[in-house]
Amino acid sequence: MPRYVYLDHAATTPLDPQVWQAMKPYCLDVFGNPNSLHLFGDEADEAVQQAKGDILHLLGAKQGKIVLTSGGTEANNLALMGIAQTYKHQGRHMVISAIEHDSVLSTCASLAKQGFTIHYVPADRTGRVRLDELEQALTEETILVSVMHANNETGVIQPIEDIGRLLQAKRLKQGTKTPFFHCDAVQTVGKIPIQVDEWNIDLLSFSAHKFYSPKGVGGLYVQKGIRLSPLLHGGGQEYGWRSGTQNVPGLIGAACALKQCQAHHDQDWQHYTALNHMMRETLESLPGIHLTVSAAYALPTHIHFRCERIEGQALMQELSKRGVAVSTSSACHARHWAPSHVMLAMGFSDEQAKQAVRISLGRNITKEDIHYVLNQIEDIVRTFRNSYVLS
Amino acid sequence: MPRYVYLDHAATTPLDPQVWQAMKPYCLDVFGNPNSLHLFGDEADEAVQQAKGDILHLLGAKQGKIVLTSGGTEANNLALMGIAQTYKHQGRHMVISAIEHDSVLSTCASLAKQGFTIHYVPADRTGRVRLDELEQALTEETILVSVMHANNETGVIQPIEDIGRLLQAKRLKQGTKTPFFHCDAVQTVGKIPIQVDEWNIDLLSFSAHKFYSPKGVGGLYVQKGIRLSPLLHGGGQEYGWRSGTQNVPGLIGAACALKQCQAHHDQDWQHYTALNHMMRETLESLPGIHLTVSAAYALPTHIHFRCERIEGQALMQELSKRGVAVSTSSACHARHWAPSHVMLAMGFSDEQAKQAVRISLGRNITKEDIHYVLNQIEDIVRTFRNSYVLS
Ligand SMILES: Cc1ncc(COP(=O)(O)O)c(C=O)c1O
Ligand SMILES: Cc1ncc(COP(=O)(O)O)c(C=O)c1O
Repeated sequence: MPRYVYLDHAATTPLDPQVWQAMKPYCLDVFGNPNSLHLFGDEADEAVQQAKGDILHLLGAKQGKIVLTSGGTEANNLALMGIAQTYKHQGRHMVISAIEHDSVLSTCASLAKQGFTIHYVPADRTGRVRLDELEQALTEETILVSVMHANNETGVIQPIEDIGRLLQAKRLKQGTKTPFFHCDAVQTVGKIPIQVDEWNIDLLSFSAHKFYSPKGVGGLYVQKGIRLSPLLHGGGQEYGWRSGTQNVPGLIGAACALKQCQAHHDQDWQHYTALNHMMRETLESLPGIHLTVSAAYALPTHIHFRCERIEGQALMQELSKRGVAVSTSSACHARHWAPSHVMLAMGFSDEQAKQAVRISLGRNITKEDIHYVLNQIEDIVRTFRNSYVLS
Repeated sequence: MPRYVYLDHAATTPLDPQVWQAMKPYCLDVFGNPNSLHLFGDEADEAVQQAKGDILHLLGAKQGKIVLTSGGTEANNLALMGIAQTYKHQGRHMVISAIEHDSVLSTCASLAKQGFTIHYVPADRTGRVRLDELEQALTEETILVSVMHANNETGVIQPIEDIGRLLQAKRLKQGTKTPFFHCDAVQTVGKIPIQVDEWNIDLLSFSAHKFYSPKGVGGLYVQKGIRLSPLLHGGGQEYGWRSGTQNVPGLIGAACALKQCQAHHDQDWQHYTALNHMMRETLESLPGIHLTVSAAYALPTHIHFRCERIEGQALMQELSKRGVAVSTSSACHARHWAPSHVMLAMGFSDEQAKQAVRISLGRNITKEDIHYVLNQIEDIVRTFRNSYVLS
């Protein structure tokens, strides 16, 4: 009897049953359109305002706005495009880390075609964006710096507090409001308590399905005073920045899930740290397996490794046959496979990048699950080695 | 004891409890990311393909694609922007009806700034787009014609089969693939069985929350052979046209709801027709009340009227105090009030447009509800008249 073990929580998570329950009344009873000016609309609008207030508070913002989007991708597109269109007269230069998610990188590629200059900052071998290079890349024309909070592949936490301070100093010196600081926190919201005010973050993206709430819901925190150009045109909802009837139950679900995450943070962190340690210790002891980054720099949910002479995809597929879900690079990339740009930006070779495997832990994972998976990995690696499946 | 009667189903609908149940397993158990290449991902991907196949079939399409979006607004933006960017080398001209939803009109305004010429075709007093003007507006540079299936305010069904035939003839004569025909069917999908192939429709937008399925979910039908430029950049999901992790439960919900709607179509249509008749008869008999359009041309769910010397908003607010939800113009507009562009395009005066009220029926509305609402309207109109609340 195989065991089913889902170790791909960085790709997506199941809905928390409590969140499901919290959403129910907003689907069946308080179902009004928050833009309607009658009692059913008012009721929905109040719920929206309340949930947004809760999220702002949980992200450490005293002021500012939450723009509801359809997920992390849209939040990232809106942040970059929205700032680019509104502030292009102040400069057409952006500084972006080379290890960002595709939704940032592809948007930048599109902006480059529109005449923006994008400076990509590489990471070092620890998986962290190079601060020195980032600082040197800034010009007076730089309107936006975008660096993610934790990388989705390696789990490495980026020095965003340092970047926030750096940009704050730069702005003060220049006497300008730019460069703004956008942070893709899709991998950390729900895992690390965010402090946008304290960390000098101007725009922050999150995605509900990464923290046990619904797919197709996300948001962009926008600091007070910042203006955006819309991506979606229409009825003028969401401060005119994002038209379309709001996903009220989705927003309620996200706010509820975030509260749950915050409440169980310490306990979850300990749980992940223990399991992570277990996995790393065993994996490191297996011949030919190399952990990509140090546990000291990464989220405890992530274990990223590579296996000499075995393609990550082959290992993933074999694990899948045995009921275990892990990932190679990001899920969105999985169906069009290429060596991870994150590994390449960290200085690994094409061959090494193709060997990468990501394990990402979740709430319901047990020690028994981990034992089972480690046994399977050991067995697969041994079998592959014996049959000379070379990468 | 006041009765609560929701008569704003054109703005949004509650979730069908069966749809809620159908979504549940895809939230809690089959929760994988459909882009993941492992067993959890495959399972989700199969559900996505199945649901899209069902929707294609229910829309009368033998081939083509369903692009999952966050709703009707995004579907409309994607259709217009996506065609504009891909086919601009064949022409920068579009023909659009003047009574379209804001999500079409605002997107056109944005395209106009990018150098596109948009020809707006007005409606006649029956509420239908003028076919003669539409035909005359077409040029060899016209790459897209966009006309909605039924208008959201008046409920008037547009002559889209005629337009489809006209464009098909035009294309054959020119020997071109353009002009494409886009139809915003947000108000009719779930109410009228759509036949995209038979009606020569190339692109068709729908929004799940208008037919008893979730908010924040919609889609664009795209005929085989048509290409689009993406609005949202990223992982390359949805054929590269719409990046972002798909809202799997939302799609499952939409497909389930659409099946339900189709199955109960005849029964629902009869129910709406009977209630509609009741309302129209009474309203017409009240002094100073005028029905805007004939029942012969409109969806049986819609009753659109105006009340001499009484602002629609005042009537709506007073009804709301008595537990009844109706609308003035579209919900998205409700919080920034202006005279309805639909009424103006039909030739009504500013004053008349401001008097407009829309009632939209739903599944659970009973004869008793209608009696209650008609009594309230009669009473309010009498009271207002006596106290001389003039518009
Ligand atoms: C770091 C990061 N940013 C953005 C995204 C995109 O979020 P979504 O899937 O909600 O569009 C993801 C996940 O796919 C991610 O891991
Ligand atoms: C005709 C029409 N088109 C588009 C939309 C927008 O759909 P959504 O609210 O899903 O963005 C609506 C409803 O608001 C509509 O009635």
